[in-house]
Amino acid sequence: MVEEDLNQVVGNSNYNGEADPESNTLNQPLVKANRTLSSTPLALVGTKVSHIESLDYEINENDLFKHDWRKRSKAQVLQYVFLKWTLACLVGLFTGLIATLINLAVENIAGYKLLAVGHFLSQERYATGLMVLAGANLGLTLVASVLCVFFAPTAAGPGIPEIKAYLNGVDLPNMFGATTMIVKIIGSIGAVAAGLDLGKEGPLVHIGSCIASLLGQGGTDNHRIKWRWLRYFNNDRDRRDLITCGSAAGVCAAFRSPVGGVLFALEEVATWWRSALLWRTFFSTAVVVVILREFIEICNSGKCGLFGRGGLIMFDVSHVTYTYHVTDIVPVMLIGVIGGILGSLYNHVLHKVLRLYNLINEKDEICPTNGRSGNFKQFHCPKGYYNDLATLLLTTNDDAVRNLFSSNTPNEFSMGSLWIFFVLYCILGLFTFGIATPSGLFLPIILMGAAYGRMLGAAMGSYTSIDQGLYAVLGAAALMAGSMRMTVSLCVIFLELTNNLLLLPITMIVLLIAKTVGDSFNPSIYDIILDLKGLPFLDANPEPWMRNLSVGELGDAKPPVVTLQGVEKVSKIVDVLRNTTHNAFPVLDEAELPQVGLATGATELHGLILRAHLVKVLKKRWFLTEKRRTEEWEVREKFPWDELAEREDNFDDVAITSSEMEMFVDLHPLTNTTPYTVMENMSVAKALVLFRQVGLRHLLIVPKIQSSGLCPVVGILTRQDLRAHNILQAFPQMEKSKGRKAN
Amino acid sequence: MVEEDLNQVVGNSNYNGEADPESNTLNQPLVKANRTLSSTPLALVGTKVSHIESLDYEINENDLFKHDWRKRSKAQVLQYVFLKWTLACLVGLFTGLIATLINLAVENIAGYKLLAVGHFLSQERYATGLMVLAGANLGLTLVASVLCVFFAPTAAGPGIPEIKAYLNGVDLPNMFGATTMIVKIIGSIGAVAAGLDLGKEGPLVHIGSCIASLLGQGGTDNHRIKWRWLRYFNNDRDRRDLITCGSAAGVCAAFRSPVGGVLFALEEVATWWRSALLWRTFFSTAVVVVILREFIEICNSGKCGLFGRGGLIMFDVSHVTYTYHVTDIVPVMLIGVIGGILGSLYNHVLHKVLRLYNLINEKDEICPTNGRSGNFKQFHCPKGYYNDLATLLLTTNDDAVRNLFSSNTPNEFSMGSLWIFFVLYCILGLFTFGIATPSGLFLPIILMGAAYGRMLGAAMGSYTSIDQGLYAVLGAAALMAGSMRMTVSLCVIFLELTNNLLLLPITMIVLLIAKTVGDSFNPSIYDIILDLKGLPFLDANPEPWMRNLSVGELGDAKPPVVTLQGVEKVSKIVDVLRNTTHNAFPVLDEAELPQVGLATGATELHGLILRAHLVKVLKKRWFLTEKRRTEEWEVREKFPWDELAEREDNFDDVAITSSEMEMFVDLHPLTNTTPYTVMENMSVAKALVLFRQVGLRHLLIVPKIQSSGLCPVVGILTRQDLRAHNILQAFPQMEKSKGRKAN
Repeated sequence: MVEEDLNQVVGNSNYNGEADPESNTLNQPLVKANRTLSSTPLALVGTKVSHIESLDYEINENDLFKHDWRKRSKAQVLQYVFLKWTLACLVGLFTGLIATLINLAVENIAGYKLLAVGHFLSQERYATGLMVLAGANLGLTLVASVLCVFFAPTAAGPGIPEIKAYLNGVDLPNMFGATTMIVKIIGSIGAVAAGLDLGKEGPLVHIGSCIASLLGQGGTDNHRIKWRWLRYFNNDRDRRDLITCGSAAGVCAAFRSPVGGVLFALEEVATWWRSALLWRTFFSTAVVVVILREFIEICNSGKCGLFGRGGLIMFDVSHVTYTYHVTDIVPVMLIGVIGGILGSLYNHVLHKVLRLYNLINEKDEICPTNGRSGNFKQFHCPKGYYNDLATLLLTTNDDAVRNLFSSNTPNEFSMGSLWIFFVLYCILGLFTFGIATPSGLFLPIILMGAAYGRMLGAAMGSYTSIDQGLYAVLGAAALMAGSMRMTVSLCVIFLELTNNLLLLPITMIVLLIAKTVGDSFNPSIYDIILDLKGLPFLDANPEPWMRNLSVGELGDAKPPVVTLQGVEKVSKIVDVLRNTTHNAFPVLDEAELPQVGLATGATELHGLILRAHLVKVLKKRWFLTEKRRTEEWEVREKFPWDELAEREDNFDDVAITSSEMEMFVDLHPLTNTTPYTVMENMSVAKALVLFRQVGLRHLLIVPKIQSSGLCPVVGILTRQDLRAHNILQAFPQMEKSKGRKAN
Repeated sequence: MVEEDLNQVVGNSNYNGEADPESNTLNQPLVKANRTLSSTPLALVGTKVSHIESLDYEINENDLFKHDWRKRSKAQVLQYVFLKWTLACLVGLFTGLIATLINLAVENIAGYKLLAVGHFLSQERYATGLMVLAGANLGLTLVASVLCVFFAPTAAGPGIPEIKAYLNGVDLPNMFGATTMIVKIIGSIGAVAAGLDLGKEGPLVHIGSCIASLLGQGGTDNHRIKWRWLRYFNNDRDRRDLITCGSAAGVCAAFRSPVGGVLFALEEVATWWRSALLWRTFFSTAVVVVILREFIEICNSGKCGLFGRGGLIMFDVSHVTYTYHVTDIVPVMLIGVIGGILGSLYNHVLHKVLRLYNLINEKDEICPTNGRSGNFKQFHCPKGYYNDLATLLLTTNDDAVRNLFSSNTPNEFSMGSLWIFFVLYCILGLFTFGIATPSGLFLPIILMGAAYGRMLGAAMGSYTSIDQGLYAVLGAAALMAGSMRMTVSLCVIFLELTNNLLLLPITMIVLLIAKTVGDSFNPSIYDIILDLKGLPFLDANPEPWMRNLSVGELGDAKPPVVTLQGVEKVSKIVDVLRNTTHNAFPVLDEAELPQVGLATGATELHGLILRAHLVKVLKKRWFLTEKRRTEEWEVREKFPWDELAEREDNFDDVAITSSEMEMFVDLHPLTNTTPYTVMENMSVAKALVLFRQVGLRHLLIVPKIQSSGLCPVVGILTRQDLRAHNILQAFPQMEKSKGRKAN
């Protein structure tokens, strides 16, 4: 998995890399840091700048956790497995219900809006009609953005990049909370019903993840169900699995594509994956599909107001048949190539636009957490356009797609109106994305792609017999592959949308070509957004130059490690917690030779203790009057393991008296005695593989030669230290040896 | 990923585990090994007992490899990427062509055979007809098994368990060679044309993998193309990726199911997976599908002899329409439950039958490598049955499936004949599997499942309006899920077979129920076969009791580590190579304090050297007359890196004179200086996670306290040492704490 990635030192996904691999020889002196390795723990989550941390998938082998799983009974384990499946089922159930709700609300609101406008138009009261339409749209959009800005800035945008980062191991505060979910639901309804150029697909994925997270922790942060069973889910690993289920359920609900949902979660969202997860996400999407099917049956009997045939089955083109022949390979390849170019162009322009927004924001404000979200209001201005467009088409976006995909309609859309549609949606798509509302990227790209495909079809004229509707479908697939760079999941989603397996080979070809072409220009749209937001996403493949740098050199560029003694003074602990921001500290001990029980005068590494556990110790005031090792039962009484699993690091409200400051704490039972370690001469590339594959939060660097006088730990690496961008700031000369990286 | 698996200490996949987790407390004395940890490196590959080794996905950071990738130019890297995609395309191309060839051959041979028999029957010469049929079938089967027995025992059986083990990191000799492939192709044609109860699906997967392996290494072992470009693929990682592509292409060719092929590789076969691989396997299967489509077009014009509509589109039931209603949920669930029970029952019985065969073989022979394969001849006897059955049905297995799946045929098959069919195929399926011919498991299970489904449908009578053909499809799906435990890939394969997306929810429910029911009884059929063959497959989830054992204790149960000095005497190296079977040796050095350059009298760990590289040193006679460190260029001239990448450990033909024995070798430049290490107190569970996630071959155990007098390495762990089965033999008391393990 690893060297392979390093071997293929070429490629496409490194956005601005220049290569000069010849310049390195083995005899070259070791690189020296010309400034310290610094990293900012801030990133944009939604539209809010947040302090981010890493998740931790390591097995924490401290005495308390060890004791807990040793005594866990079979019944408890059965409870756990049962609950796991129940939660997967509930995730599917709620996602399906909320997707139905959103669809019903959007179709009804947009329907009554358009009915009212039509009413005025038919009475030839054009001005009033326009006013009503503009007013309704403005109102709906305002509801969406005001909610986002004031209540849940994390609900803005599609949410998919953040989910991707979370599943990669980046903890994002407030990203999966109840407020975020409710604002996302209402905001989505408002924005889509207002006819903005955005879709409900991305938001549905985020909503699915929110449901999963809320179910897993038993409620909102403030009102949790204190159910004993749920405590098993209070760890990063189970939460990750649940959120993966949620995102798959969301995609399934958006496209009514169960297999596509599973594959989307696998291909685009998840970082770690295993067969068991495949099965569980599949279960969630199966539940969603059953729910959607039921509601379609109910709505078919006319009980859903103005719902009709819209919304739920997003682009039900399954009753349409397409035919094609072997000679049609030329236009098909053309669709792929142009789609790839257009897709990467879209990524490029969106990148520029988003950077422009970032620049404006940086100039405007010093304190980012307060004002930033407010800034996005300025993007509400181009709302006039939407009204024009709504008047032009007087339909929802879903219907527009359905019309464009329809077959046997070669003359229904003139080249001129297709051009207007395409250009307008390009511009709108780019600008709308910055608005502080829940906004999906799928629909705008599908709309543009469908228009582009039809235009290409019209331009090909009588060369092929491919239906114009098929051109639209393939154009949409090509543009999505060119921009989002999905292949298998997109193929399956389109398959499940069009319900025509005979289209499979042709769709595959288009997708493969479009992705290849797009990859040769820039990374996928989600990677660009991840990068812009500053989310510390760890790539599967280390950069090639990381092989030329050792973790020891990287550790030297950081401030010295802060260590604690096995039995430590309270004052030292308070001091360390106050004056550092580290989330874990190595615990050292007097070394004893095992054979003779003799102190050697040297120090040994006992393990790693988490900041959260130190805070817990202070909060519980678990202090000893003398410097001694404690018995295991003493600790167990004080610290139930499920409390230790909580991530808590705020100790401002802990007041410690000066006499307590002189007391001691035995850190041994709370220390993870087996942290993963690497030797200082290991290359960063190799350490990164370990870090990412095992899902670590901290990685200890140990010296190659351990001797009595030396500290047994020379450094700690975190996610931020292993990011290429941060390393290059401390070691700019590495850039010289920076090759391009391939898939 | 990790603790989650350990938390869920329950479940279903541990075949014979009993749980008593209460019996462990933290104060319990440390477990002691009551016998040494022994492991046999022998396993059944096909029908041949072979010596197996591990693959190695670690980045080998020795000076020579380091030098090579530092000087690799951009053009070379582009070559590499280009070649990678070309190979993926060629894998698809050849797999598609060979699948077509097999289908054409089978249909034509079986067709002429049946025509001849029909000719005699129509002349009322029954005895002659029966003789011809029996003779033809006997001949075809003999060709298949004689080839297997005498030329390529590795070609016997389905091959999928071996591929699964290979992709998990187990190297299997002769598994993917040219002889194996050719025998597999001819054997498949013979066995399937003879009408045996076996399919060509499993063999096609194996053939795809063989093609991938042969292409990757540039030809057969003896006749390789010495093309410079190909040397980049001479490593375990690239070979693994190619073979994954090959297996996906094989499934795609078997079922004409491109997405299903990708998912099968992902869900059932591969251990490591990443998005890039998803895309490349998808490309391979796309090529296969295009090839198959072309051939179908050609055959439709009647140029394929007796091919007609058979074979290639295995079970083309796409023109059949099925309908179902919400009330049909009861029979659907029933199908799933019974399918799960039957599937696990099938696994259970097959397990017993295969064990019986193993026992017979063990009694019969001492030397397993010679005689074992011959033993399987005894299973040729029940061939009379097939002739009966062929006379009964007078059709190929593919046609039987097609007939069973056909809709609107409620009365075509009587309950009696379905029973005979079902029972016969159950018995035959179990016995045929032991024959030394290429044999797929898919088709027998599909046949049984289809018959079972129809029987259930007939038994349900007028309760539901589900078509009998749909019952057959669902029955086949249920039995496959109950036996093979695939979900998503199976769902997609059935979807692509039936070309009816409306069946999706119903198929999902059946699959989920059948898998759940099956999992509660025993592991999947492939896991059972893997276990029986003794292939050291590493599971994703450590056993719960592995948390109670430290790697130090595990290391103590092994013989002491054999170490080498940085500059070592030739005689010591020869001695070590002769008298041990280890594949890597830690290299120790005099430790120097970095600051002062002073020898401390202590030893330090320089790294790990591979046996293959030591053999290379001896073969190249790279000896020094004095004990000194060499310059890097001296080594580079002697050892081109692509030669070092070869896996070579036979040095019987190396004759070393007694004066050479007294010379020295500088092992430093050939030593991997950064092997992954764990401290001795780490639990086996945690070490196993590292081992499997990173894909290691060797893992060094370092002492917790390093001091001058102690060796810096206390042990080496290999794949065999980390297998639950081997550990339990040395630490039987761990079994007491052995819980059951869930997905």
